[in-house]
Amino acid sequence: MTLKQIGEFGFIHKISRGCLVRPENVTVAIGDDAAAFSTVPDELTLVTTDLLIEKIHFSRNFTDGLDLGHKSLAVNLSDIAAMGGIPREAFVSIAVPENCELDYLEELYRGIKALAAAHNVNILGGDTTRAPKDLVINICVMGSVAPSDILTRDKAKNGDRIYCSGFLGHSRAGLHLLKNNQYKNNNLFQTLIDAHKRPTPQIGVGRFLAKYPDVKTAIDISDGLGADLSHICKASKLGARLYENSLPISDHLKEFCARFGFDPQEYALKGGEDYVLVFTIAPEKAKSLEDAYCQKFGVTPHLIGEIVATPGIEMTQPDGCTKPIESAGWDHFKVDA
Amino acid sequence: MTLKQIGEFGFIHKISRGCLVRPENVTVAIGDDAAAFSTVPDELTLVTTDLLIEKIHFSRNFTDGLDLGHKSLAVNLSDIAAMGGIPREAFVSIAVPENCELDYLEELYRGIKALAAAHNVNILGGDTTRAPKDLVINICVMGSVAPSDILTRDKAKNGDRIYCSGFLGHSRAGLHLLKNNQYKNNNLFQTLIDAHKRPTPQIGVGRFLAKYPDVKTAIDISDGLGADLSHICKASKLGARLYENSLPISDHLKEFCARFGFDPQEYALKGGEDYVLVFTIAPEKAKSLEDAYCQKFGVTPHLIGEIVATPGIEMTQPDGCTKPIESAGWDHFKVDA
Repeated sequence: MTLKQIGEFGFIHKISRGCLVRPENVTVAIGDDAAAFSTVPDELTLVTTDLLIEKIHFSRNFTDGLDLGHKSLAVNLSDIAAMGGIPREAFVSIAVPENCELDYLEELYRGIKALAAAHNVNILGGDTTRAPKDLVINICVMGSVAPSDILTRDKAKNGDRIYCSGFLGHSRAGLHLLKNNQYKNNNLFQTLIDAHKRPTPQIGVGRFLAKYPDVKTAIDISDGLGADLSHICKASKLGARLYENSLPISDHLKEFCARFGFDPQEYALKGGEDYVLVFTIAPEKAKSLEDAYCQKFGVTPHLIGEIVATPGIEMTQPDGCTKPIESAGWDHFKVDA
Repeated sequence: MTLKQIGEFGFIHKISRGCLVRPENVTVAIGDDAAAFSTVPDELTLVTTDLLIEKIHFSRNFTDGLDLGHKSLAVNLSDIAAMGGIPREAFVSIAVPENCELDYLEELYRGIKALAAAHNVNILGGDTTRAPKDLVINICVMGSVAPSDILTRDKAKNGDRIYCSGFLGHSRAGLHLLKNNQYKNNNLFQTLIDAHKRPTPQIGVGRFLAKYPDVKTAIDISDGLGADLSHICKASKLGARLYENSLPISDHLKEFCARFGFDPQEYALKGGEDYVLVFTIAPEKAKSLEDAYCQKFGVTPHLIGEIVATPGIEMTQPDGCTKPIESAGWDHFKVDA
C-alpha cells in the first residue's frame, strides 16, 4: 500500500488511532479545522497548525516575502475562524535554504507580524533552522472559544440550508494567472491574484456565526467546496445537495474563465484556498440569519444548497435534474505535480 | 547582510521585534526553551515547537521511522522539561516526499505515539502534505507549569553553582558512528548511538527542579554546553566558569575519542543534542539539592562550574589557569554542511 493509494485522508485516518491517551476535556481531536480542549470550565483552547512547503504550496518566483508571510498566517487564522474562535498566539517555524536572502525573510516576518497585529495575535515563539533546498514554514496558532459557541463539522442536520460567505474559485484563478505570467499590468484580474496571494481570514464572520445560537457547523474552504463540504457531510453522517444556479461565481471569475476557456463551475467546486466559510442552519432559522448577517456585514451570505439524508454530494441543475459531485478536491498525496 | 553573517541568534533577535502586541499575561516570549503565558491565574501554558528537516537534522539512511518519531517528539518534550513543565498536547505536521514509504511513516507515528503515551501526552492535531524531496516534521507541544515553579534562563545569580544532569558529547559521538557506518554489531558504542537516536527527555528531572524552591534557572543541551550555557549567561547578564576536571565525560566517550582520535573535552563542550539539563543554584543551597536529587534519582548531578560576574565563559584548568571557552556551539545558519 502506498501513500498515493490511501490518500491524505486515508493516511490521517490511519495515524489517528492511539493519539488520544487522555481524552478527558478534549472536545475536538484530529479531524476538524482545529483541535479544541479545555483547561478551564468556560473556555476551550483551539489549536491549528499548517505546514507550507516551497514548490508545493508557494513559489518564491512569484510570491514576495510580504505576501507569503501574510498567507502563511492567514491559512491558520482561517482555521480558527472556522471553529468560531478568537486567535491569540502564534508560533512560527522556518527552515531556510542558502539561496534565500535575509531581505526576503525580513519581509516574510513583516507580513506575518502585520496580519498578527491586525488580529491582536502575539507571536510568542517558533524555531529557525537551515533547509537543504526549499523554504519551509510551519505556523501553529492558538485561540479560544466558549464551549457553547464552538463551530464543528459534525453538527449539520438533515434539511439544513448551506451557506457560503464569499466567492469561490478566485484563488485558483489567481494562481493560474501567476503561474502563466499573466499578472503584469493586468488590473482586471488583480482581484483574483489578490485572493490567491493575500486571502482574508474570516475571523469576523466566524465570530458572528459562533455567537449566532442557531449555527453550529462551519468549515473553511481550503481544499475546494466539494472536498470541504464532504468533510461536513461525513462528520455529520449526511449528504448535501447544491443548487447549480446559486454557486457563488463572481463576474471576475466568469470573465477569467471565458478568456482562458475554463469552466467556472469546476473552479467553484474544486478551486480551494478561498478561505471563505461554509456553514449550515435549520431552514426555519435561515431567513433571520440572512437578515442579521446582512445587517452586520452589509451583504447576504450565498445560499448554495441543503443538507440531505443520502450520503454524498449532488447538484440540482436548472432543469431539475441532479448530478453527483465528486467530493474529492485537493488531496496532497493523490495529486500529480 | 546575509543570514550566514548574522547567524541564527542574530536572526532571531532581528525578527523578535514587534512580535508582542498583547504583552499582558505573557511571562516568557521568544528567547527561552518554550513560551509561557497565562489564561488562568495559577497556571502557565508552555508552548514549544521544533522543525526537523531531512539531511539537516536526520538521515533516513541510518534512522528508522520508530527512532525518528521518538526523537522528533523528544526534542520538544526536552524543552518543556527545561521549563519545569508537564507536557500535555502535541501537534504533528509532516511533509512527505514521494520516495517515503507508508511503512516508514507508520513507524514514525508509532515512535511519536509511544513516547507521547509514556508521558501522558495527547496528539490532538497537525497537518499532512507532500514535499518535493525531503521529509519534514514539525511538532508543537503544549504543557503547563505553576508560575512559582517555572525555570527560565534569566534567573542565574553571581556565585550560583552550575550542575548538569547527565553526560555530554554522547549524541555527537553516536552521530559520528552512524555516519561512518560503525554501528553494525558494535555493542560497545551502543550507548552513544542510542543517545543520538533515542534521547530521553528529562521531564522527571525538570519537574523535580521546578518543585525545588531554590532552583529557578535551567536549559536543555540541544546546541552544546558552551552555546546553551551562554544563553543562560546572556539572559542573566552574567558569565560562567567551568571546571575542566569536572566536565561530565563518560568512560564510553573517552573510549570512543581514544579510538577515533577526537578530543573528549571538545565533544563535551560543543556536542549538542544530549538533552540533559543544566541548572544553577546558590552555593549555600547546593549541598542540600545534591542530597535531595540523589535521594530522588539515585545519582548525584554533575557540579560543572559556577556563575561569575564577568560576561563570557571560561574554564579553570587543573593547574589553576583559566582559558576562554567559545560560546558558539551549533548555529544553524553559520555551520557549513
